[in-house]
Amino acid sequence: MNNIGKPLFILKMKILFQNMITVFGTVALDTTRTPFKTGTRIMGGAATYASLSSSIFVDTSLVGIVGSDFPSEYMDILDNRVDTKGIIVKQDGKTFHYDSSFDYDFAHRISNKTELNVIADFEPVIPTEYINSEYIYLANNDPIQNMKILEYFSNPKLTVCDTIEYWILNKREDVVKMMSKVDGVVINDEEARLLCKTTNLIKCAKLIMSWGPLFTIVKKGEHGSLLINGDTVFPAPAYPMEEIVDPTGAGDSFAGGFMGYVAKQNNTDINTMKEAVIYGNVMGAFAVEDFGVQKLLSITKEDVQNRYQMYRNMVKF
Amino acid sequence: MNNIGKPLFILKMKILFQNMITVFGTVALDTTRTPFKTGTRIMGGAATYASLSSSIFVDTSLVGIVGSDFPSEYMDILDNRVDTKGIIVKQDGKTFHYDSSFDYDFAHRISNKTELNVIADFEPVIPTEYINSEYIYLANNDPIQNMKILEYFSNPKLTVCDTIEYWILNKREDVVKMMSKVDGVVINDEEARLLCKTTNLIKCAKLIMSWGPLFTIVKKGEHGSLLINGDTVFPAPAYPMEEIVDPTGAGDSFAGGFMGYVAKQNNTDINTMKEAVIYGNVMGAFAVEDFGVQKLLSITKEDVQNRYQMYRNMVKF
Repeated sequence: MNNIGKPLFILKMKILFQNMITVFGTVALDTTRTPFKTGTRIMGGAATYASLSSSIFVDTSLVGIVGSDFPSEYMDILDNRVDTKGIIVKQDGKTFHYDSSFDYDFAHRISNKTELNVIADFEPVIPTEYINSEYIYLANNDPIQNMKILEYFSNPKLTVCDTIEYWILNKREDVVKMMSKVDGVVINDEEARLLCKTTNLIKCAKLIMSWGPLFTIVKKGEHGSLLINGDTVFPAPAYPMEEIVDPTGAGDSFAGGFMGYVAKQNNTDINTMKEAVIYGNVMGAFAVEDFGVQKLLSITKEDVQNRYQMYRNMVKF
Repeated sequence: MNNIGKPLFILKMKILFQNMITVFGTVALDTTRTPFKTGTRIMGGAATYASLSSSIFVDTSLVGIVGSDFPSEYMDILDNRVDTKGIIVKQDGKTFHYDSSFDYDFAHRISNKTELNVIADFEPVIPTEYINSEYIYLANNDPIQNMKILEYFSNPKLTVCDTIEYWILNKREDVVKMMSKVDGVVINDEEARLLCKTTNLIKCAKLIMSWGPLFTIVKKGEHGSLLINGDTVFPAPAYPMEEIVDPTGAGDSFAGGFMGYVAKQNNTDINTMKEAVIYGNVMGAFAVEDFGVQKLLSITKEDVQNRYQMYRNMVKF
């Protein structure tokens, strides 16, 4: 926020090319098998869900890599909603592919196959016009890639990362180092416990914060989320869902909704963050109502606002 | 509530001997093993926790049976807080004894031994002065015993029952029949799923309500609770706890707090029930802070009110 001493042309660029949010992470092809439907090589990936979610709130740029097998109609869908100049298409590579199954109760996902493909040796770069992005969300990428991306940004207002079991098991030290470099961590409950080697989620959050972040949000799926920020503990129930079609991307949509609302308000005070958590819950609830990214593509700002209001009425006592 | 046609002496009795809440269920000796402490044959039982919890709010009567091994100092503790005329001491019998262990994360209880003893062939009776109790809570007893008890009460305003895995597995039809005879069901999430044979908790609650009850409350432990009443869905997060000493009795204390608040307000409208759920969460959070019933014995009405206010501030957004 301190622009003193910066050359004027940088300030002008900031005005001209400001991207409210930049999301970095996987843009994937998912094969998702539920007892009721199987989607083969449909559009997925943490960054896809997060960016589609945040784009409901503010302009969003997406940084990632796909292979030549990534269908042009998927790219068109992304183009329609987010700035895709940050997506590299590697002509001699194949898109990251994740094959998983859900059982009848949607409580547990079984990983059938993970093909990293173009993700494996990706050297992240961003379009120069993204360097002034003020809100940065690092989805579930390699923590080393995330740290590299972070260095590109000149003066972000809020940087948030997530991580997944794979990196905790394989690069735990880098995960901790990455977390020390961001303002906030969004992580699901099982992964928080795995990372922190303790069960109590408040203790997990406090341990993560001891590494550097100002706040931690633990995502608990059907049980909602828990924001810990300094002395503030803010538990928020999930929007109750009677019918779930596909839980894929709920957590990423939560993160996108959270970042989107904070960026839209352009404010990181605690009250804004609490509201943002509720918008995150609302976006997660939308995501699971249809297969893949379908629901995120069909809802409007008004739908989001209506559900937010329903949520507010519902939890009032 | 309609007293037309009732003889006058009944109405007078109601004024003279009114007990605000009658709790029926197990008064037990628990052996509870945690990694940090073992309590051998300490005071426990669903009805003990529920009645101690509700007695913070209103006068409470306790109906149950113990053996001659039930220590007189435990009976004194109960006497000090609740009306114990409903407790039968069977001189040639032993008190119900439950031996269980928790692991480090307190997430799962392992049952080591369950000795029904005097509970097994208990033919429930209640002191005649209890028959005008207006608020009846049937803790985790045999559903057939619960139905018998229910018949004693002349004109209750609110009847609520709970149940446990043991009865669902052994007497499922009687559990369903019992539920058809009460106004509300309080049940934990795992038992709701087991009883209803479906995972989604809203669907479980709706199925239970299709049997008769006007409302269902699903207790979700560290994730709080879910009240379903007609079209109302009210999810409430748990009061976040960083240190848990002994999870025993949390759900029973929740039920006691819920019933206690409703009885104190003498009102069963939806707004009162929502508030009562919050008081239930508060009482459950107190219960786990010390071993056995210790915490319930040491807190005051002011402690409860302060934590309720902290809860209200905490969830506000």
